[in-house]
Parts: sequence; structure tokens; C-alpha cells
Amino acid sequence: MTPLEKAGVLVEALPYIKKFYGKTVVIKYGGHAMINDQLKQAVVTDLVLMKFVGIHPVVVHGGGPEITGMLKRLGIESQFVGGLRVTDSPTMEVVEMVLGKLNKEITSLINRLGGRGVGLSGKDANLIIAAKKLGGEQQDIGFVGEVTEINPGLVETVLKEGYIPIISPVGVGRDGESYNINADYVAGAMAKALKADKLIILTDVEGILENRHDPSSLLSTIKVQDIPALVDRGVLQGGMLPKVDCCVEAIRGGVNSTHILDGRVPHSILLEVFTDQGIGTMVAP
Amino acid sequence: MTPLEKAGVLVEALPYIKKFYGKTVVIKYGGHAMINDQLKQAVVTDLVLMKFVGIHPVVVHGGGPEITGMLKRLGIESQFVGGLRVTDSPTMEVVEMVLGKLNKEITSLINRLGGRGVGLSGKDANLIIAAKKLGGEQQDIGFVGEVTEINPGLVETVLKEGYIPIISPVGVGRDGESYNINADYVAGAMAKALKADKLIILTDVEGILENRHDPSSLLSTIKVQDIPALVDRGVLQGGMLPKVDCCVEAIRGGVNSTHILDGRVPHSILLEVFTDQGIGTMVAP
Amino acid sequence: MTPLEKAGVLVEALPYIKKFYGKTVVIKYGGHAMINDQLKQAVVTDLVLMKFVGIHPVVVHGGGPEITGMLKRLGIESQFVGGLRVTDSPTMEVVEMVLGKLNKEITSLINRLGGRGVGLSGKDANLIIAAKKLGGEQQDIGFVGEVTEINPGLVETVLKEGYIPIISPVGVGRDGESYNINADYVAGAMAKALKADKLIILTDVEGILENRHDPSSLLSTIKVQDIPALVDRGVLQGGMLPKVDCCVEAIRGGVNSTHILDGRVPHSILLEVFTDQGIGTMVAP
Amino acid sequence: MTPLEKAGVLVEALPYIKKFYGKTVVIKYGGHAMINDQLKQAVVTDLVLMKFVGIHPVVVHGGGPEITGMLKRLGIESQFVGGLRVTDSPTMEVVEMVLGKLNKEITSLINRLGGRGVGLSGKDANLIIAAKKLGGEQQDIGFVGEVTEINPGLVETVLKEGYIPIISPVGVGRDGESYNINADYVAGAMAKALKADKLIILTDVEGILENRHDPSSLLSTIKVQDIPALVDRGVLQGGMLPKVDCCVEAIRGGVNSTHILDGRVPHSILLEVFTDQGIGTMVAP
Amino acid sequence: MTPLEKAGVLVEALPYIKKFYGKTVVIKYGGHAMINDQLKQAVVTDLVLMKFVGIHPVVVHGGGPEITGMLKRLGIESQFVGGLRVTDSPTMEVVEMVLGKLNKEITSLINRLGGRGVGLSGKDANLIIAAKKLGGEQQDIGFVGEVTEINPGLVETVLKEGYIPIISPVGVGRDGESYNINADYVAGAMAKALKADKLIILTDVEGILENRHDPSSLLSTIKVQDIPALVDRGVLQGGMLPKVDCCVEAIRGGVNSTHILDGRVPHSILLEVFTDQGIGTMVAP
Amino acid sequence: MTPLEKAGVLVEALPYIKKFYGKTVVIKYGGHAMINDQLKQAVVTDLVLMKFVGIHPVVVHGGGPEITGMLKRLGIESQFVGGLRVTDSPTMEVVEMVLGKLNKEITSLINRLGGRGVGLSGKDANLIIAAKKLGGEQQDIGFVGEVTEINPGLVETVLKEGYIPIISPVGVGRDGESYNINADYVAGAMAKALKADKLIILTDVEGILENRHDPSSLLSTIKVQDIPALVDRGVLQGGMLPKVDCCVEAIRGGVNSTHILDGRVPHSILLEVFTDQGIGTMVAP
Repeated sequence: MTPLEKAGVLVEALPYIKKFYGKTVVIKYGGHAMINDQLKQAVVTDLVLMKFVGIHPVVVHGGGPEITGMLKRLGIESQFVGGLRVTDSPTMEVVEMVLGKLNKEITSLINRLGGRGVGLSGKDANLIIAAKKLGGEQQDIGFVGEVTEINPGLVETVLKEGYIPIISPVGVGRDGESYNINADYVAGAMAKALKADKLIILTDVEGILENRHDPSSLLSTIKVQDIPALVDRGVLQGGMLPKVDCCVEAIRGGVNSTHILDGRVPHSILLEVFTDQGIGTMVAP
Repeated sequence: MTPLEKAGVLVEALPYIKKFYGKTVVIKYGGHAMINDQLKQAVVTDLVLMKFVGIHPVVVHGGGPEITGMLKRLGIESQFVGGLRVTDSPTMEVVEMVLGKLNKEITSLINRLGGRGVGLSGKDANLIIAAKKLGGEQQDIGFVGEVTEINPGLVETVLKEGYIPIISPVGVGRDGESYNINADYVAGAMAKALKADKLIILTDVEGILENRHDPSSLLSTIKVQDIPALVDRGVLQGGMLPKVDCCVEAIRGGVNSTHILDGRVPHSILLEVFTDQGIGTMVAP
Repeated sequence: MTPLEKAGVLVEALPYIKKFYGKTVVIKYGGHAMINDQLKQAVVTDLVLMKFVGIHPVVVHGGGPEITGMLKRLGIESQFVGGLRVTDSPTMEVVEMVLGKLNKEITSLINRLGGRGVGLSGKDANLIIAAKKLGGEQQDIGFVGEVTEINPGLVETVLKEGYIPIISPVGVGRDGESYNINADYVAGAMAKALKADKLIILTDVEGILENRHDPSSLLSTIKVQDIPALVDRGVLQGGMLPKVDCCVEAIRGGVNSTHILDGRVPHSILLEVFTDQGIGTMVAP
Repeated sequence: MTPLEKAGVLVEALPYIKKFYGKTVVIKYGGHAMINDQLKQAVVTDLVLMKFVGIHPVVVHGGGPEITGMLKRLGIESQFVGGLRVTDSPTMEVVEMVLGKLNKEITSLINRLGGRGVGLSGKDANLIIAAKKLGGEQQDIGFVGEVTEINPGLVETVLKEGYIPIISPVGVGRDGESYNINADYVAGAMAKALKADKLIILTDVEGILENRHDPSSLLSTIKVQDIPALVDRGVLQGGMLPKVDCCVEAIRGGVNSTHILDGRVPHSILLEVFTDQGIGTMVAP
Repeated sequence: MTPLEKAGVLVEALPYIKKFYGKTVVIKYGGHAMINDQLKQAVVTDLVLMKFVGIHPVVVHGGGPEITGMLKRLGIESQFVGGLRVTDSPTMEVVEMVLGKLNKEITSLINRLGGRGVGLSGKDANLIIAAKKLGGEQQDIGFVGEVTEINPGLVETVLKEGYIPIISPVGVGRDGESYNINADYVAGAMAKALKADKLIILTDVEGILENRHDPSSLLSTIKVQDIPALVDRGVLQGGMLPKVDCCVEAIRGGVNSTHILDGRVPHSILLEVFTDQGIGTMVAP
Repeated sequence: MTPLEKAGVLVEALPYIKKFYGKTVVIKYGGHAMINDQLKQAVVTDLVLMKFVGIHPVVVHGGGPEITGMLKRLGIESQFVGGLRVTDSPTMEVVEMVLGKLNKEITSLINRLGGRGVGLSGKDANLIIAAKKLGGEQQDIGFVGEVTEINPGLVETVLKEGYIPIISPVGVGRDGESYNINADYVAGAMAKALKADKLIILTDVEGILENRHDPSSLLSTIKVQDIPALVDRGVLQGGMLPKVDCCVEAIRGGVNSTHILDGRVPHSILLEVFTDQGIGTMVAP
């Protein structure tokens, strides 16, 4: 690469740096990008770079595979109802322990790359208030929760002081109980409560594909109003549905743009935020 | 109790409230007081009360028994060298998970009693920098660490904003590794780094007894200069030694007063801080 | 008293400390509690304690008996019209001198007990603007005034800087003249202007008694809407009427709760603010 | 006066306004200027004008004649020892009452002319700490005090918030007793404690005269080093001695310039501060 | 002048100092007062004096004669259309150079008299956004502009920090081009954007005269509603029309008072602002 | 360029962004980079980018060629003494006018690219105090000056508020006269006064070449201690000498690193600050 080409990349980033200066960006971090060491390094590098150019990243992470592993090691069997894990008390204890460990790992990695991470859960300063969520047919599935309120004060304090908050998707009920919440929903609610400018959800697919079997059929933008038709045509289905749902919720709550990105592409966050490069699918108002 | 007696208690508290106004008090929380539900409630009530009258409590907690329990459940055997658990990588993973869960439990309890707790570990914002500690005969005992540096910025920020920080005794090495550190030592180092006014260590005994078998032989104050003689006479020995050690370190680091209290007495913190009541042993300069 | 009982009193105070944290409480200080040395000490102790736990007390004091004494010493005869002293110019001069002296005495006592008192009159920074008040049958009774405006800036400044303001009930007219104002009314108007949370009026009776001759018939709460009936039934009469009047005014001005307390009970303010103890009568919305 | 002459006066004031901008000027206010209504008006106008152009005046006032009058009215006889009034407890009570009344009168006059005065005594927030002063031959002369410490915090607070503080020369002892202090000495100590730029003492003579009987022999400046010779030659004697003493003390404490002005000349403060006009005597380092 | 007369002038200024304390005054500076050295000195003295007594002057200056001189020296001929100079690119370059030099000259003079001037043009921080203005019959007259937007942030910043801003009437178009704007209009728009209290326009006549040939026929005040009649009667005409226009615009934009003063009278600004002296014509709502 | 390569450039910039965050960088802008439109655009883009990532650029510009052109147009002949232009009063007038115009042009270009430029000269708020500089043999060469003092307050204020200051190298003498100063020296003095982290001098050569005729012989770093030898060997000579001189001065004044860059390379500032690319010569302590 010539010096001039290098300079060109930096100059290309300028309008984006200007645009997002002082803005908050919420990132749902999960899947492959959380397991592969090289991708992990790339994601965290992107977060630290954002912070240094004046953007405020807020991370909400998942942890499904590690939770399953630990439950297995402890001999705790999981039952599933409509795709949701029935979370009894011993299971919930494991969920909290594993998420807590992952949370501090990400935090530590941020610190090693020169950022200043702070690992939080929804219990800290009552950050995430949750209520019990019932399964498909109104079944009791234990300590599975949904967000009823976000108290963003603590996150705002640490953001203002220059830290990068990393948040576990554990909420606390009015009764003091802990609840396990889907991280996509926490990210959406957090983006709304923080009046974030952007919500980025990392996944393990290219984005939304017109034809699921053809990566070249990526839809770079879908509009909220077109979603019902996409569902009807079967383009939107399965695990992508709740993610799109969160994007729509966030947009309705005032978030400017929402993105479903391919977390398997190194630096996909960086490319989305700072370049003209099309990566993944934007869900737009 | 007559109204006048009630008023008397409040009036008795006045000079202490004045004395500690705006001061930081570091509390090592562990042992019985962390297992018994009623004592837990009492300790947390004391913390919240302190915060409301303008004192800044900072909690460092332990977690030995729960760690042992979880290791057993996972079938991880522990080896001990000179009283210290050899902490290999799988053991350290469990240590972090269990401490993380306990940390958020205390946080949550504080929130329920009207405080605003924030659970942190030494990894958050590089709060506790650790180095590997060798066993008795320079043996490698794994990820057991000692504090080499405290970066108190994050704790100061949350204190200033009205939160109560709860800290797990996990440090991070220059190499990015996690280290398990004795909570007494973390509390001492934290008190020093925060320029705390007071260090309180909760234990499961009455304090330092002249005659170990006679609770009425409690020494209400010992001076730093008298410690060698107390060791010689066998009054100070066993698990009490590192606690006294931390007190001495804290005093040398500028902490005004240090206390070893009986955590089995409900509200022992409150009584120590706000009344003329003699509880436990003060280690004085 | 056992240590646990002591701790119990402090714990009982916790919700009240939380509730009133950062709030302003206006206290009308007069009568017996201002003459008896032991009661004086107790009242001032209560004020200092409140300040130290984060509450902002503001004191408005009276001074009737001392004024009468000084007028007698100076051979100035007082005429009364409908219970109000006709206040000519020489009388007014004495009123100001005596109130000024009492004001600085209270201030000084606060300072000796560790608070930081500042003695003010309504003339300082035009704190209390007054207008001439006529006697019962529109008679001219001299420099007797009523509050027309409060300029609370100075009081807010000294509160914010940690001082306890003590205020003499002397107002200044648009014409620059001094006016003597009933301290109850000044306390009520001050509570309203400062958006106080609580107004406490110290008196020399138990509170409002259903049967004036039976102290056990104390009404612990009366509602604003029930006052006309209480007047009709003769329960409310005489000197209690203007006090109740001030409470009603304050409530209508946004003050949360108002209390008529027995100033002869030591630490009645403390008991009212920090305990579940029923003392005196609350006038509630 | 032509418009141009008017403009000339304002332009002449410019360098003085610049020079004293943000500086503190302590004024001892007493004597004739405090009795004559027109002079009173002129002095207060000067204070308000100073405040509006960014200078911070602080007033310390006396009150001798009014105190004597009130003592007489109350039939309290005064005994004098070496020129100092023996101040027993009833006398001290009168001193405080009279000074308090005068204090609030000046305050009120400032407010009427558009300033924002705050009347304080040395008891407010322990502003003036005093110790008992003995008479000429170590005689006990009662509650006559001398300044041992100034706690200027309260005065600094009100100055910063735009108020003009008016201070009575009453101090408080370590024992809580009130002491009557010579106002010149209070002004000098206050100037020193506030790091004032200028100290102005208003008197009832032209200044220091070479020949006491010849007003045209005014010394416009005397140097500290020349004072002993002036005393030897009898130029400096009587009541002028303590005033010069205060000036010297203030200069040694860091005050830039000190002035003994003729309070009988209307607006003498204004002329001294804002014009080239020579008024009174400057005591210079 | 006697000392008392001097004091009288200062005292007369007091209510004006009070009235304008902290207020912004925009001054259009041009004509004779900008050429004559003595008048220049007087104007700048007035500005510095205002700043020192807490008023915030903002200067907008012209520069017609010097521009004409430089164009002549460079052999650039000027064409006029309806009284407006056709401003082609080489002419505009000269306009900017000359205004820039004059701007820094005024700034420098302010600094020499003890103020802290900062010279700005409408290009600094996009202070003045302009649009092309067409000549009388919609003719293209080059880079002559009119104000479309004021971005007052930079001026507010320097005012707050104690500087006196001096502004050249050069605006910048959305296209990045420079535009020459009539200084009267810039002053009016600036007064409006800064929410100024007063707008002063210096001219080379006595003000608005009922009879142009009789200086004694000065109208000291005209009301906005009377302007059409004054135009009809021929009292208002020629170069006075745009000045009155600016005053009306400013008044409609919330400016309290606007004045057309005789810049040939030394210290006319001072006399207008600080004395009862009638100078020039006030255009009032 | 692949997306990954793009991301790589941004990631390469991260450590530099961290390193210079909140630091001040002074840039001497002159020569070819100030004449060529494309280079001008590139330089200004670099400045705006720096500002957006939290670095504070301060620009000092020259203007030799344009000054010469305007002098010629006005028929003012220039005499040179030892390479320095004899600057009489008419010449100085032209210098100021031309620099002023260039200054606002750069400012305006910054604003168009999204920055917030403020154009200043050394006369604003007495930013640059200058003294007359004599020619080679102590000859009077008119208004040529050297920096004697920098008053950086105004520059610090505008930096803090987010503006980019652009400074003309015109100083003001104690006598109020304007002086033309070599821009390299102004940049060096400014870097020192602002405690800048870096000084960058743009030139029209590759940097310091070992062999003047061989661009590949560029010295990427020279040490202060090696300069005398480089002068002896003839490597350092001519116009490069004063530039190296300024660098040495700045280093001695506490500036961390100084650079002589080739202003003909587009984005040379960007490459120097944000990449590992070697551009020009660093003068190092």
C-alpha cells in the first residue's frame, strides 16, 4: 500500500468520525466473534479505536455455548420449551457465573489493548430491571426474563469518565431474583435507554440474504415497512426474527440506524462505522 | 426503650458522623457474616446507613467456602502447599466464576436495601495489578497472586457519584493473566490506595484474645510496636497473623485506624463506627 | 441498653435519613425550648445532627419574653390591640436589638456544638419583604408587618455551602422601614419559598388535643379538610389557630409535611425526623 | 459641567477600576460618617458603586456613641480603665444588641441603594475568634477582647456570590463567651485574613497632620519606617496611634496600601479609590 | 472641578453601571471616529471602560475610505450601481486585506489601553453566513452580500473569557466565497443574534434632525411607529435610512434600545451609556 | 484495497491516536503546500482529522510569495540585507494586509471541511510580543522583529472550546508597533509556550539529506548533539539552518518531538502523525 493510499483510508474515515463524534453505539457481541481468538482481538480493537476517536461504545454480550458447557460439566440437564431453556435455580446460578467470567474476560482484553473497560451486569445499580417471561404456551420456564426498565445512570457515568462498559444480560426482578435475558433484547433496550445513535448486532451469517443459500444475495438495507413482506416471503425467519425485532424496537425508540453484521469478518464493526464499505444489512426507518 | 434513650443513641452517633463525614472506610467482608442470611442483611444495612450519612464504604469480599464447594461439584481436586491452594488454570476459572456470582449477590442486596451498589473485580479498568506469588519454599502454586499496584480511579469515580463499590479479590497480571489474591491483603492495599480513614476486617472470632480460650480476655487495642512481643508470647498466631499484617501495612500507608471485628455480632460495623461500644480489636499506630 | 438495641435505633433511622437526604426542613424555634438551657442544648444538637446526615435545617426564631423584659427595663410601656403589641418606633428598635442578640446566641451555640451557624435577619439581602399589618379593626398598630415576599437566594447560598441559617423574624418594607413579624408566619413563608420538605413548629403544649385537659387525647394527625370542623368543635382555638394556619399555607405552597411539636420534650425534633415515635400533631394535606 | 468634563471624570476612573478589579477593600466605618444621615448615604453609595465595578468592599463598623447612649438609658454605669470601658456581662449584652441593630441598619441601607448587603458578627461561623484582653496594668476589664484568629470562609463565600458583608466587631472566645473588640483592629485583621488589597479607616480628622492645629499641614503619605520618629516628634499620638498600628499590621500581613481618610468629606472613599484626588494620609510600606 | 463634583459624576454613573451589568452592547464603529486619532483613542477608551465595569462591548467596524484609497493605489477602478460598489474578485481581495488590517489596528489599540481585544472576521468559525445581494434592478454587483445567519458561538466564548471582539463585516457564502457586507447591517444582525441589550451606531452627524440644516432641531427619540411619517416628511432620507432600518430590525429581534450617535463628539459612547446626557437619537420601540 | 487492508490502516493509527490524545501539535505551514490547491486541501483535511480524533493542531503560516507580489503591484521596492527584507512602514502595512487575507483564507477552508477555524494574529490579545531585530551587521532593517514573549491564553481558550487557531506571524512591540517575524521562529516559540507535544515544519525539500543531490540519502533522525558536526560537514546549511534552530529551541523548551517534513507530499502531516511511515527528518533530543 502506498503512503497516499494509507492517507486515503484515514481521510475516508474523517466524515464518519465527525458524524459519530460524542455519539453512543451499542454493540451486541456474541457468536463466533466471541469464541475465535483472532476475531475477539479484532472486535476489541475496534471498540478501543472507536473510544479513542470520541465515540462511546457500549457492549452487551451473550454466552450460550459456554453456559451449555458448564451445565454439562456440572451434570445439570437442560430442558427446552419452544427453543427457550427452562432456567431453574441451579441453572440460573451457572448462567450468572459463566456470564460473569466471560464479562470480565472481555473487560480484561479491552484493558490490555489500551482501553479502559468496566464489566457490569444488570444487577449493578439496578441497571436492568426484569420481569418473568413465560414460554410459548404461557408455560413457566423459570428465571427467563424480559426487560421492563433500564436505569442507565451508571452506564452514563462510566461513559462520561472515559470507560467502555461491558454488560452481561442478567436482569434483576422487583422481587430481587435474577433473570436470564436474551442479549439481543438487552442490546436493543440499552440503545433506546441511552439514546444511542447506532445499534450493531453481530451474527454468524452475512446479514439478511434474499436467498439463504446465496451469499451474493445480501440485502444491504431493509426498511421497517418492508419487514412484513419479507416475513411472508420467508426471507426473514428463524433466529433472524428476534434480531430484526430488536432493531425495529430501537428505531422506534429513537436510535438512528441499526445493523446486523457478519461477526465472522474481522473488523466488521470498524468497516461499518468508518468506511463506505457495505457490510451486513442495515435495518432502516 | 424510652424516646429519650432513642434520642440518646442518635446523639451519641453525632460526633462519629461528624468525624467520618466524607471519609472512606474499607471493609473486608468474609466468613460467617457472608453465609448467615441475617448477618448478611445486617452488614449490608450498615453499609447503606454509612453511605447515607456521608461516609464512603468500599467492600472487598472473600469467598473461600463457596469456591471449595463448586470445585468439589466439578470434581476438581485441590492441592494445598503451606496452607495456600495450588491454583491451576481450571481452578482459577472456578474462582473467578464463584467470586463473580457472590459479588453480584452482595451488590443486589445493597440495591434492595436502598443503596446503589456496583460490583467490580480487579480486572475492571485494571483496578488491581497482581504478580505471581510463590509458595512457602518458592514453589510454583499457580495463579495465586499478590497486589503490586492499585489503580483507584474507577473506584473513586463511582464513590463520588454515590455508589457503593463491592470488589472481588481477583487481580490481573502484566501478562493479562488472572490471579487469585487473599482478600485481606486486597482490602489493606485498597485502603492505602484510596487514602481511606479506616480499615475494618470482619472475622469469625471476638478479636485478639490474650488467652485464646477466654473471650473476656479481649485486647481492645494493640499498638504496632507491641506486635512482635505478642507474637513471641503466642497471643498472635495462625490466621490472625496476615490480618494484623494488613492492618500494619494500611497504617504505614496512612490509614488512620484499623479494626479486626467479630463478624458474628450483628451490626458490628455500625457499633464500631457510630458508638462508644468496644467491639473487637483496634490495631493502632 | 444492649449493643443490639443501640444498633436498632440507628437502623430505625436509616429510612428517614434516606427520605430526607438533601431536603430542607424549616423549624420555628420559640417558647420554653428557647429559655431552658438544657432544652436549648438539645434543640441545637438536633439541628447539627440533621445537617451532618445531609438534611438542611433552617431556623426561624421568636423572642417574645426577652423583648418584654428589655422594654420593661427601658421603661417603654406596651399597648396591646387584639393580642398584638402596638409597635411604635422606640419599641421596634428594642425588638430588633433583642432579636439580634438572641439570633447570634443561637448561632454561637450551633458553632460550639460543631455546626456552622450563620445568623440572619429579614433585612439581609432583602430576605423578607414586609408590609404594614393593621390590627383587628383596621387599627394602626405601628411596625407590625406581614410577609409579602421572600428572596431566598442568600439562604440557599449559605445552605449550599454547608451553613445552618438562623433567621430573625424582622422584615423590611418597600419604604425601608423595619417590621416585626410573627415568627410562625415567617417560618411558613420561608418553608414555601425554599420549597422545604418539612415545617416543624415548636410549641409549649403536647400538640393538638381533642380534650384540652387530657394530654392522652393528642391528635397525631389532622387533615386540612377537617380543620373547619375542629374549629367548630372548639378543639382548635386561641394561639394554636395561627400555627395551624401557617401549616396549611405551607402545605398549599408545596411543603410535604408540617408538624406542631412539644418543644418541652428534649430532642422532639430528632424523634420526629428520625424515628417512628409519635410526637405532637402532624397537619397533613 | 460640560459633557466632555463628565467623560473626563469617568476616563480618569478607568485605571483605578482596572487596578482594583476583583480586589478586596476593607473599610473601617465609624465616627461622624456613621451618625450624619447625608454622610451615611454617601458612604453606602460608594460601597455599592465599588461592588458594581468589580471591587469587593468589606465593612467593619463601630458603634461607640450609640452603645454609651443605651447603657445610660438602662442605667448601667461604665467604668473606664486606661481609656478602655470595663465590660461586665450586662454591658456586653448591651454592646451586642446595639452593634447588631446598627449592623442591620447599614445592611438595609445598602439594599435600598441597590446593593446586596449581608450583616454578620464575629460569631457567625466563628468568623472572629477572640481572647480576653487585659487593661493597662494587667487589670481584668471584663469582656474586652483581641482578635486571635479570623475564619474568613463565610465572608469569602458571600463576597463570591456578590454580597457586601458588614461586620460587627464582636468576637467569640474558645469558651463560647462574647468579646467586644476595637473595630480598627478587627478591620486590620480582616484585611490581612482576606488578603485584601486596601484597608481604609474612616476618621473624624483630616488625616495625620504635621501640626495638629493646621489642616493644611496634612501628611499625604507616611512610611512605616518613619513612624517612630513621628511618634517622638509628637505628630502621632492619642487615638491616631492604634489606627496607625492597624495599618502597619495590615501592611506586614500583605495588604498593599492602607489609608486614614476624613470621613467627614462626602464620598471620601470614592475619591480615594477612583480619582487622583489626595484625601487623608496613606500609610505606606 | 471640585472633588464633590467629581464624586457626583461617578455617582451619576452608578445606576447605569447597575442597569447594564453583564449586558452586551454592540457598537457600529465607522466614519470620522475611525480616522481621527484623538476620536479613535476616545472610542477605544470607552470600550475598555465599559468592559471593566462589567459590560460586554462588541465592535463591528467599517472601512470605506481606506478601501477606496487602496483600490486607487492598485489602479483598480470601481463602478457603482445605485450607490453600491460593484465588487469583482480583485476588488473583494482588496476589501478583505484593508478591513483585516484596520481590524487588527483597532484590536491593537484596545490592548494598548489595557483591554484584551480579539480581531475577527465573519469567516472565523463561520461567524457570518452571507448570500449574494443583487443591485437595485436585480443587477449582479459581484461579491456584495447580505447576512443570512449569525453563528455567535465564537463571539460568546471570547466575551465570556473577558475579551473584546472586533468584527470585520466580511461574510462567507455557502459556496465558500467571501462577501462584503454593509457594516450597519452586520451590527444589527449581531445585536439580534447576541441578544444584546443595546445597539449603538456611530455616524458623522448629530443624529436625526427635524431640519437638516439646524443642529438644534435634533430629535432625541423617535418611535418605530413614527418612522413612516418621518420618511414621508423627508426628515429621514439618504444614508440615514439603512441605519434606522438596522435599528428597527434589532428592536424587532429583542434588542432593548438602539442609538444613532454623533461619532464626532469625543466619548459619545460613554456619555450615552453612563450619563443622563442626551446625545444623538434613540430609536425606540 | 481489500476491506481488511482498510481496517489495517485504521488499526495502525490506533496507537498514535492514543498517544497524541489531548496533545497540542504546532504546524508551520508555508511554501509549496500553501500555493498548490490540491496540497492546501490535503493539509487542511489533515488538520481537521487531527482535531476530530482529539489532537489540538495550531497552525502558524507564512506568506512570502504573496507579499512580494503585492509589493510589486503597489510599486514598493524591497531592499534586502543579509537575506532579510528591509521592512519600512509602507512595506509593513502590505505585510499585514497580505498575511491577514491569507490567514482568513486558511480559516475559511478549514470551516468548509467541517472544522472550526479561528484566524488570529500576534496582535490579538497581545498573543505575540516582539522586539526589533537588527540585520546582520547591527543594521536597522525596519519592522523586522523577533519573539520576546508569547501570551498563550487566547489560543488556549479557543483550543479548549474546540476551535483550530491559525496564526499570522505578526508581533506587537511594547511601543505598539507591528513587527514581521519569521514564521518558523513563531512556530517554535508557540510550541514552547503551549507546551506542545510536537512541532512540525513543512518545507519544500525531502528533509535533511546527507547528500543534497540524492533524495535517497534522507536522514530520518538527527540528534541535537550531532548538529554541530552536520554543520561542519556542510550537510546542514542555508535555509535549513533556522528551521533546525527552531526545532532545537522547541526541544529545549520541553516539546517532545520536532519534524521537518516535505510539504510537497500530500497528507505528509497525516502520515507523520498517524502511521509508521517515515516522512522527512525528525530532530530529536
